[in-house]
Amino acid sequence: MERHHFEDELQTLKNRLLTMGALVEDRVHQAVTALVERRLEVCDTVIAGDREVNDLQIELDDRCLKLLALQQPMASDLRLITAAMKINADLERIGDQAVNIAQNALRILRQPPLRPLLDIPRMADLAEAMTRDSLDAFVRKDPLLARAVLARDDEVDGLKDQVFRVLLTHMMADPGTIERALSLILVSRNLERIADHATNIAEDVIFLVEAREVRHHYEAQDR
Amino acid sequence: MERHHFEDELQTLKNRLLTMGALVEDRVHQAVTALVERRLEVCDTVIAGDREVNDLQIELDDRCLKLLALQQPMASDLRLITAAMKINADLERIGDQAVNIAQNALRILRQPPLRPLLDIPRMADLAEAMTRDSLDAFVRKDPLLARAVLARDDEVDGLKDQVFRVLLTHMMADPGTIERALSLILVSRNLERIADHATNIAEDVIFLVEAREVRHHYEAQDR
Repeated sequence: MERHHFEDELQTLKNRLLTMGALVEDRVHQAVTALVERRLEVCDTVIAGDREVNDLQIELDDRCLKLLALQQPMASDLRLITAAMKINADLERIGDQAVNIAQNALRILRQPPLRPLLDIPRMADLAEAMTRDSLDAFVRKDPLLARAVLARDDEVDGLKDQVFRVLLTHMMADPGTIERALSLILVSRNLERIADHATNIAEDVIFLVEAREVRHHYEAQDR
Repeated sequence: MERHHFEDELQTLKNRLLTMGALVEDRVHQAVTALVERRLEVCDTVIAGDREVNDLQIELDDRCLKLLALQQPMASDLRLITAAMKINADLERIGDQAVNIAQNALRILRQPPLRPLLDIPRMADLAEAMTRDSLDAFVRKDPLLARAVLARDDEVDGLKDQVFRVLLTHMMADPGTIERALSLILVSRNLERIADHATNIAEDVIFLVEAREVRHHYEAQDR
């Protein structure tokens, strides 16, 4: 394979990774919309749609392995392809979390509406934007955009803790809300995990571009 | 680098991956022991010990990248090295879950003991054994052992659902138990995630050895 063709294949890999990213972001959005608008049938759609995500993951892994095997790529391309493999795994797990949100939503929607969903829609907006931006940062090799994703992870963690405290108080004040409140706490954990996956992707991008290790000690702060 | 030296480096990579596996398995074991024996200081040790896991992850990733870059390895070695990179990421996240268990345990131990911990110790035993066996399967290239790991994931999921149902009933019957029961539910989710990571590793092993894709449709069963 000549260099020109190799570049084409790398570009295709990036495009397919963006397709995968858009797909899982849409699944997360649908799962949270199903919860907010109380639409059971949308939960079922999200749960059934996981196969498409899984198929794309396998296709992408296969593209990466072929590029590694055929091209004997140089250092920078090697890092790009191995980063794509890791990002692929994180995207697939974001898809899994969308399914988990839909499953928790089904349990919540079996009962009458509890009250406003607190900061859960806000957490979802953040997690979706972080997923989108981390992938854009990968395609554009933009470490600044990647760092902006890392910064927002703390905001998501703060919202998760707040949702937890408020719902715990509700449960103790009115045991009739326990089951719904508990499922909402699990949804907030699902969203936190999505933000964590986006953070992993952003860290991979910074490593890719700057070739130095940011994991575990960015901004001299433990996560 | 000659072939002989390359084989040595691959062996070192496997040994270091086993070291990483033993380390995170020990962290999980300590975190659950801290909960069972009500030892606050062990929780602190587990939380502080995450740095060692993170350092090992970075070392292992670096070894993999160097082997890929220097050796231009053939198809089977390529799959071995990329599998090692994925396994490394799963092990690091098992370490993260040990930290989360220790944090949940700290919250539980601030209050008087609730009651027996249901099937949580059993879930921990299973998750630890799955982690150990998935890595053994990798080093020995043993797809049978890897498949035995996959089979146990359903058992862990079943225990998680049972723990959830029992604790939900407790919370509704006695709201004074809500905070502790909720934290125990989160611990059971942490253990379920560890079992999921071990399952990911086992799937990577089967792909590595049999060069066919088992993810998402092993035993014709959705996960």
